[in-house]
Amino acid sequence: MNTIGTELRLTLFGTSHGPCVGAVLDGIPPGMAIDLERIQNEVDLRKPAAGIGTPRQEEDRVEVLSGILEGRSTGSPITLMVVNRNVDSSKYEQFKRVPRPGHADLVARSKYAECTDLRGGGQFSGRMTVALVAAGTLAKMLLEERDIRVAAFVRQIGSVRDTGERGLAEALFSRSNPVRAASPELVERMMEEVLKAGKEGDSVGGVVECIADGLPMGLGEPFFDTVEGEMAKMMFAVPGVKGIEFGAGFAAASMRGSQHNDPFVLVDGKVRTAKNDAGGILGGITNGMPVVFRVAIKPTASIARGQRSLDLQSGRETELKIEGRHDPCIAPRAVPVVEAAAALVLADLGMRGGSID
Amino acid sequence: MNTIGTELRLTLFGTSHGPCVGAVLDGIPPGMAIDLERIQNEVDLRKPAAGIGTPRQEEDRVEVLSGILEGRSTGSPITLMVVNRNVDSSKYEQFKRVPRPGHADLVARSKYAECTDLRGGGQFSGRMTVALVAAGTLAKMLLEERDIRVAAFVRQIGSVRDTGERGLAEALFSRSNPVRAASPELVERMMEEVLKAGKEGDSVGGVVECIADGLPMGLGEPFFDTVEGEMAKMMFAVPGVKGIEFGAGFAAASMRGSQHNDPFVLVDGKVRTAKNDAGGILGGITNGMPVVFRVAIKPTASIARGQRSLDLQSGRETELKIEGRHDPCIAPRAVPVVEAAAALVLADLGMRGGSID
Amino acid sequence: MNTIGTELRLTLFGTSHGPCVGAVLDGIPPGMAIDLERIQNEVDLRKPAAGIGTPRQEEDRVEVLSGILEGRSTGSPITLMVVNRNVDSSKYEQFKRVPRPGHADLVARSKYAECTDLRGGGQFSGRMTVALVAAGTLAKMLLEERDIRVAAFVRQIGSVRDTGERGLAEALFSRSNPVRAASPELVERMMEEVLKAGKEGDSVGGVVECIADGLPMGLGEPFFDTVEGEMAKMMFAVPGVKGIEFGAGFAAASMRGSQHNDPFVLVDGKVRTAKNDAGGILGGITNGMPVVFRVAIKPTASIARGQRSLDLQSGRETELKIEGRHDPCIAPRAVPVVEAAAALVLADLGMRGGSID
Amino acid sequence: MNTIGTELRLTLFGTSHGPCVGAVLDGIPPGMAIDLERIQNEVDLRKPAAGIGTPRQEEDRVEVLSGILEGRSTGSPITLMVVNRNVDSSKYEQFKRVPRPGHADLVARSKYAECTDLRGGGQFSGRMTVALVAAGTLAKMLLEERDIRVAAFVRQIGSVRDTGERGLAEALFSRSNPVRAASPELVERMMEEVLKAGKEGDSVGGVVECIADGLPMGLGEPFFDTVEGEMAKMMFAVPGVKGIEFGAGFAAASMRGSQHNDPFVLVDGKVRTAKNDAGGILGGITNGMPVVFRVAIKPTASIARGQRSLDLQSGRETELKIEGRHDPCIAPRAVPVVEAAAALVLADLGMRGGSID
Repeated sequence: MNTIGTELRLTLFGTSHGPCVGAVLDGIPPGMAIDLERIQNEVDLRKPAAGIGTPRQEEDRVEVLSGILEGRSTGSPITLMVVNRNVDSSKYEQFKRVPRPGHADLVARSKYAECTDLRGGGQFSGRMTVALVAAGTLAKMLLEERDIRVAAFVRQIGSVRDTGERGLAEALFSRSNPVRAASPELVERMMEEVLKAGKEGDSVGGVVECIADGLPMGLGEPFFDTVEGEMAKMMFAVPGVKGIEFGAGFAAASMRGSQHNDPFVLVDGKVRTAKNDAGGILGGITNGMPVVFRVAIKPTASIARGQRSLDLQSGRETELKIEGRHDPCIAPRAVPVVEAAAALVLADLGMRGGSID
Repeated sequence: MNTIGTELRLTLFGTSHGPCVGAVLDGIPPGMAIDLERIQNEVDLRKPAAGIGTPRQEEDRVEVLSGILEGRSTGSPITLMVVNRNVDSSKYEQFKRVPRPGHADLVARSKYAECTDLRGGGQFSGRMTVALVAAGTLAKMLLEERDIRVAAFVRQIGSVRDTGERGLAEALFSRSNPVRAASPELVERMMEEVLKAGKEGDSVGGVVECIADGLPMGLGEPFFDTVEGEMAKMMFAVPGVKGIEFGAGFAAASMRGSQHNDPFVLVDGKVRTAKNDAGGILGGITNGMPVVFRVAIKPTASIARGQRSLDLQSGRETELKIEGRHDPCIAPRAVPVVEAAAALVLADLGMRGGSID
Repeated sequence: MNTIGTELRLTLFGTSHGPCVGAVLDGIPPGMAIDLERIQNEVDLRKPAAGIGTPRQEEDRVEVLSGILEGRSTGSPITLMVVNRNVDSSKYEQFKRVPRPGHADLVARSKYAECTDLRGGGQFSGRMTVALVAAGTLAKMLLEERDIRVAAFVRQIGSVRDTGERGLAEALFSRSNPVRAASPELVERMMEEVLKAGKEGDSVGGVVECIADGLPMGLGEPFFDTVEGEMAKMMFAVPGVKGIEFGAGFAAASMRGSQHNDPFVLVDGKVRTAKNDAGGILGGITNGMPVVFRVAIKPTASIARGQRSLDLQSGRETELKIEGRHDPCIAPRAVPVVEAAAALVLADLGMRGGSID
Repeated sequence: MNTIGTELRLTLFGTSHGPCVGAVLDGIPPGMAIDLERIQNEVDLRKPAAGIGTPRQEEDRVEVLSGILEGRSTGSPITLMVVNRNVDSSKYEQFKRVPRPGHADLVARSKYAECTDLRGGGQFSGRMTVALVAAGTLAKMLLEERDIRVAAFVRQIGSVRDTGERGLAEALFSRSNPVRAASPELVERMMEEVLKAGKEGDSVGGVVECIADGLPMGLGEPFFDTVEGEMAKMMFAVPGVKGIEFGAGFAAASMRGSQHNDPFVLVDGKVRTAKNDAGGILGGITNGMPVVFRVAIKPTASIARGQRSLDLQSGRETELKIEGRHDPCIAPRAVPVVEAAAALVLADLGMRGGSID
């Protein structure tokens, strides 16, 4: 379904090639100052970067339909909408007959029958994340009022891995370059990796890391509504995400307990841990350290080079060539999406547990 | 909260050192034949294995409190209970003062104040998974009636990685050995890794892989209720899980689209993919291939060797030694838990989408 | 919150005096033929009737933003929007200071503070029901494909009570007259009751009855998700509703069991009841008889004559006069709203129980 | 389903003639003092009164399975259980063949097939309310810590109506007499009405009124999660309830707006209303006045005198005689159930809106 969240509840609407995409966000407390330009900026950050992205040119102008009056939230659901302008649906009809590998064409057709709207990927399109970013920026504002900051960056693109220790500052730095690298020396290498894949008619995957700093101890509602669980559910809605790990994550599998356990220490009179292999979460609840997680982003499914597929009508194997240009790597564009989505989850958990009100 | 699921809804109750743990499972259709011995067997599989596990000896006898009559489900919620017998809570009092690294002691105390029940880990204890396994076995039965099989095995323990291609048969084989290895030649090596960690007063992490075979195309309710998202939320409730990945997972980050995309092919008149890097899921919906995922399990937090912690009363750093013996590796015991939990998610999704009824 | 439903899920957005009101309806199966004119007709039925209603003139043109393609549902959420045109918010500012009796002004101000949007009643306005009617008509279409019909009519206005036995035919007849009476001889009397109240600067309450015919046995998910419970929750969202009863309802309080129990009989080979004091529901589940319920609608809170209220600034009692003209009775306008809302509940329950798919 | 509530979430388990009934209550904050005797007293109040009730003699001993330690809530879900002892299921088998009018036998058999557990009414039995009362008493305690009191009484039994103005004191007085009348002079008349129905092999309906006093302004989460809607959904889960009204309720249908609107006045510096026809709720939100509602309770469906029914096997009409003795009126026994259920709803709403924490 298109609705998520308990006390802060998001409903997405629209489709890739319909008249618009939008979001209804229910639960933002009344009286919050809302900087519309900030929302626009975040949405703009999600646009394809010059040189490395798809040429779909969308103005992506965010319009307010409800819930904001004189620059403040009214307490009613906030509705934001972005009109779709640059739409060319002509080429999508063929994918009903020859489904694109790595795309939802086939399963959508199976689940929703002939009537499914595959134009531009329909509901499965990354375009839905425009609305997610707009709504998530409201959650960010809510968190920032409580000195909680959420920022993400690209940890890996293809064979280029960022192995440095990164914090909020580096994550924020990533906004200044098109590949969202956390460090200047990585920008060119990551850029190259993307361009090379593109030149070869191919695409490449990546890893986005997200840091939430300033969280109080106590967010998360186990047994089932853990911070990790709520965050993961949200992240897997972001198209292309195929994995998520917190703190040391999968590396923990080859660690010893004596290595992985984070010792408790006192810092400025507050209980902290000496390191953060737990990713800021113990027993499904925030422990006061930064929440740190990484999501694996698969290589863009749409590639120029020929791929094996099936002609569902004739039942014969065929080669499919997807025309047009596509982002050779969506990891950089996923950065503001992951940030926004993470903010929504944390704000909701904060409101549920009463830790943020 | 302790409730999860939409059409098949699980509520856990009890605590580690209270009188019992149990589960209420709402939504099992009426008339399903229920083999209680099978439930008992699955619960028994979760027990610590001879030689490598904790000596907590629990009979773990599953009792039916409602919903089953004359060997069949009645359509009313099914309540299963397991009495706790082998309980010694004396040693847990100290952890309120000196929280154990890697455990929820501190956050529980912060969130639930003085009154929290830390005995045996309380609600955060792996003991809650006894009830999860019992309830999940009902979901397994429901899936098996539709020829869907779910099986898990240990993919990695510490430095020992299983790099073979594994399917349902190998996963089922893992039931025959205490480390739940998918292949005979790995048993000894994984066993050694566990024992070595234990002998050194330490613990070690692992990876559990789960395969669900026989699923129809069409399970999953995007945008938000994707197969990956629902599965991930459930898995992060399993104590110790710190990451999850589907199909190629994090390896996708360094792959090209031409590698990662699974070509569509016709097998026995059915549309399948030539390989399964998508882990059986496209656009958040099952594509008819086996659903394959892996979860990272952190090393057991309770270790014998001394650890740095804080005396919260004095505010001084202190060394904490946790007495008693603990599983040096919980990955093998997590296998039936992951299986049961996965079955619950898939059955729920099947009932929601109308694909399984 | 602004979202309701489990398998058929409705989210409302917008406000009375914002740019629009709208609805996102998630769960309509793909391939359903959608007659947009029909939706428009239902929305038009909700407009104030000539002679007895408020002069707010809204075109109420329903626009489709997603989920419908070439006259059929795509399986994605359906988004419908109605632009607000005839808006004059100038007079609402004063109600922050002097709250209108019977309105939400005071509680909204208390709950949402200064920032609440009281213009036109904001989120509390009957205007939200435009979107409810539009979305509910989709549910009606879904039910009608399964030969289930939902129709409502006005059972009482002020002192004029319709004491006849009414069925689907009479309910449908009510569409032909402005007071939504089920019988021609009541039209004039009810009309008079409304006009008299209006002339006296006052308003009058009423009762709307709703009938759902053709339902299969088995809708409803007790213990908690009963047909009555789900229906009631939805109905109390309709502004002005203060009571609901099923079948004999409150009259059952003075009945004997031998009177109230509906005997089972065989009609055309189907088990039915000889009468329907249960309102088609036993144990919270439909029994195959028509579901029949009534809602009590309070007199319109906005009246012309002076009322006692408080000046919240000075703390002094004051007389409030509400300018402009308002519907002296909203019961007739509630008829299509009740119908639409009932259809949403029944379709959702049908999809949950697997009885309607 | 058997789960209800958002921040305070109740799951019922068990069946009438199974080993037990019970409740899991998730969300009670840690550290609340819990008087187990008080819970037992409330459960005992629900028992059939001497002289007018069924002779099913249940000890109804409430046992704590989790969530309470040393007299205080731990923050984990609280599990309460009551063992069923006085069970005789022999006579229920016949109702699968000849369904009892007014009971769920037929619909249960249709929905849950042959396997349904009809013994003692199974899941549809009033016995489930033992667990509801036990859990609801915890909600009452939570409310009482905030000086909110919930009390109910019998407003009507058959032809005997209590027409007096009643408040919390009278509601509490009702605990002292078996018919739960709010005034001494009604006790005998109501008693007689019950006994007369019983003597004639019949039963009689009633109305229970509930008052919640001391509520802050601001509970309720419109558009859909109104106080009325949440309360109504809960109340219709109580077996036998067929209607609910708030404040003036159905009487509002024949009122004028000038009568029904409650004028705002200042009392002790607080904004109150001069009367309470709104039942303490405006726009779906509490307004600081007592929340007042009434539920219609149908006459007990099980009666001694012969009734028309169908033999489903032969397809012939038959006369059904239900043996044993049953409560001729369940309204008095519903009083503690309505109180408990109301407390659960109000506490949940209080925790959602952040008004009660």
